[in-house]
Amino acid sequence: KSFISYPSDCEFPIENLPYGVFSTDANPTPRIGVAIGDQVLDLTVVKHLFNGPLLGDRQAVFDQPTLNDFMALGHLAWAEARAVLQRILSVDDQTLQGDASLQDRAFVPLSSVKMHLPANIGDYTDFYSSIHHATNVGIMFRGKENALMPNWKHLPVGYHGRASSIVISGTPVRRPHGQTAPVEGQPPVFGPCRLLDFELEVGFFVGPGNELGQPIPAEKAHEHIFGFVLVNDWSARDIQKWEYVPLGPFLAKNFATTISPWVVTTLALSQFTVPNFPQDPEPLSYLKHSDPFNFDINLEVDIKPPDAALPSTIVRSNYKYLYWTAKQQLAHHTVTGCNLRPGDMLASGTISGEEPDSFGSMLELSWKGTKQVQLIGGSTRKFIQDGDEVILRGFCQGDGFKIGFGSCAGKVLPALPGV
Amino acid sequence: KSFISYPSDCEFPIENLPYGVFSTDANPTPRIGVAIGDQVLDLTVVKHLFNGPLLGDRQAVFDQPTLNDFMALGHLAWAEARAVLQRILSVDDQTLQGDASLQDRAFVPLSSVKMHLPANIGDYTDFYSSIHHATNVGIMFRGKENALMPNWKHLPVGYHGRASSIVISGTPVRRPHGQTAPVEGQPPVFGPCRLLDFELEVGFFVGPGNELGQPIPAEKAHEHIFGFVLVNDWSARDIQKWEYVPLGPFLAKNFATTISPWVVTTLALSQFTVPNFPQDPEPLSYLKHSDPFNFDINLEVDIKPPDAALPSTIVRSNYKYLYWTAKQQLAHHTVTGCNLRPGDMLASGTISGEEPDSFGSMLELSWKGTKQVQLIGGSTRKFIQDGDEVILRGFCQGDGFKIGFGSCAGKVLPALPGV
Ligand SMILES: [Ca+2]
Ligand SMILES: [Ca+2]
Ligand SMILES: [Mg+2]
Ligand SMILES: [Mg+2]
Ligand code: NI
Repeated sequence: KSFISYPSDCEFPIENLPYGVFSTDANPTPRIGVAIGDQVLDLTVVKHLFNGPLLGDRQAVFDQPTLNDFMALGHLAWAEARAVLQRILSVDDQTLQGDASLQDRAFVPLSSVKMHLPANIGDYTDFYSSIHHATNVGIMFRGKENALMPNWKHLPVGYHGRASSIVISGTPVRRPHGQTAPVEGQPPVFGPCRLLDFELEVGFFVGPGNELGQPIPAEKAHEHIFGFVLVNDWSARDIQKWEYVPLGPFLAKNFATTISPWVVTTLALSQFTVPNFPQDPEPLSYLKHSDPFNFDINLEVDIKPPDAALPSTIVRSNYKYLYWTAKQQLAHHTVTGCNLRPGDMLASGTISGEEPDSFGSMLELSWKGTKQVQLIGGSTRKFIQDGDEVILRGFCQGDGFKIGFGSCAGKVLPALPGV
Repeated sequence: KSFISYPSDCEFPIENLPYGVFSTDANPTPRIGVAIGDQVLDLTVVKHLFNGPLLGDRQAVFDQPTLNDFMALGHLAWAEARAVLQRILSVDDQTLQGDASLQDRAFVPLSSVKMHLPANIGDYTDFYSSIHHATNVGIMFRGKENALMPNWKHLPVGYHGRASSIVISGTPVRRPHGQTAPVEGQPPVFGPCRLLDFELEVGFFVGPGNELGQPIPAEKAHEHIFGFVLVNDWSARDIQKWEYVPLGPFLAKNFATTISPWVVTTLALSQFTVPNFPQDPEPLSYLKHSDPFNFDINLEVDIKPPDAALPSTIVRSNYKYLYWTAKQQLAHHTVTGCNLRPGDMLASGTISGEEPDSFGSMLELSWKGTKQVQLIGGSTRKFIQDGDEVILRGFCQGDGFKIGFGSCAGKVLPALPGV
């Protein structure tokens, strides 16, 4: 129990302690903080309290404008940091609780902070690891018989995404222009995307990573998984359809990817571990790990049209539906020797459940535009319209507490005139 | 004419002046240099000579461990820098020529430097812009009728590559392990790649770039193209074949990409401008530009087996065979609003000519492993073997001078035991 008080449905209780990078009007320097209740603990102010064996002479990692250096320290240092945070925020400890002046300098109201990207993301990879999503897409585009490609159950299919256009929650997203082929066999046309979509995903940040040429075994992969954020992999379906064969999605995905600002650590999520998704056939041994590394994270998507009083929740899914674990994704990614660096981000792919209201994209919810999705107040959607705000949320429900991801939101601006 | 003397077939005459990042045993700090003759001009030593209107108060860009800040300054600053270099290296100028002490500090023999990556590459994109390469691959995998996909002549097909595993020429390349499906319909197997290949490509580095949401028009794209390097996009064909549908190449390409260390500027290459490749059908207007932006760059690939006395030249191709120009690639990449950052790298895709000896990969040279490629001394290859060194070279032949790219070399190490 923390000396900071908060209600039982607070997203940031002492069981959570997510890391983020923030600034304030009074101090515009981006710096590392931890969310607790409705406050942010400024780690630059309390870094001297991290004086354990691993962090004692590495307190400078908390004085950086990103989390990369802290991520690079590895899982034992992360555990040491969490233990310090849990102690100094506890109602049983006087270090902070008993020092009004230190408290005054160390805490900033959540409502007053501006959030920044938590890491300098060197490379971003997007997987395709939800079996319900891959099956839905497969049925729509190739029919029921060939829904899953032959490789899908043998390896976590993934591709490289665009790191430069990853933006923090709250950043408006411009509807992209692009080339599409609305009528098969006719020449393509150019104009604003007509089929703008979101993808409900969860991404993780890489810790120490590996040297080029040195794979990370699946059994050790968790040592390189620092924590998780919500990811909206905005997608232009009409651009994607025309461009993606044979080298994969490119412009359809690279105009923006929104992430939530608070990195919920693997240590916090471990309280919500559930069995891995059953895999049949058994994967090759380089993809096997013996521990459960799957988490019960409720995921929701809201749409708030510009004229609506209330957002409508149109998706209720869960991280646990993923077929491939994050450990398998990471082991697969490095098995050729590809080097991961601290701060790299690997996203799950759209997470859809079995039920229609758990599908993680408009493509699936509207079944390729053949059905209307109902919103509160009577309006409907097949894809995302200008002015719509798309809000991803995630939380784990504990016994008397909750661990939240905060929100991952983005409002769609109309296409740029004159392009 | 320079006061530094060199033979007429020297790769680095005063008409070239490529930029690179180097260090020496005596001074291991990576810093920016310019190659001239058999010397490197250390720009940290002569940065005070860049005192024109654009660079006068920005000399700090030459004191960085990468070229990113200089690239960010834009094409007018690049032209100013080139004019200064041409002047101070000229036989008609005494600034350097007349100052033995400055010369002594400013020049380092090329033979004594260690080269580093020229830029911190935030994102790397690989195109597929050679019509002969795309046609060859199409015939092999889909038959003559459907060789080119319907989108190919309408847009420069491309995909995101892996930035972290880009290495500088001379770095050994480990044969990757991976998952492959040697017998169709049978379960996949795991082991070292059996079909290791190179791809002969040329990449360019991005200058100022654009803000997210703001496309760069094709007519202005050259203002963002700093210069070019040779690129070997190492490829594991057996891994690629099994993984790449539907999201494109991933592990097959991300274990290593080798680049040459000297960035040959767009300004230097403009002396070798040739007409653009004829495009039919006409591209959409966002892809049109009125100026020629194609270059006559001879490209060659050598293989040197471990036991061979001499390398064998197995490819003679040319940059001018590219169907899509670098300006079109850049305009296409940003048309959705995707932001390019200084130091990003965009590669051409494998550059094959029409003739069989101009094909830019073993896949094409051995026609999917159905033919042997003859090497000097009687040995043969279908794909790359352990111990083979693959060396890409590029040069423009002028009237009495030559502009070279140096070499882009990598030796293949056997797969790591025990993976
Ligand atoms: Ca996705
Ligand atoms: Ca390539
Ligand atoms: Mg995206
Ligand atoms: Mg590559
Ligand atoms: Ni990147």
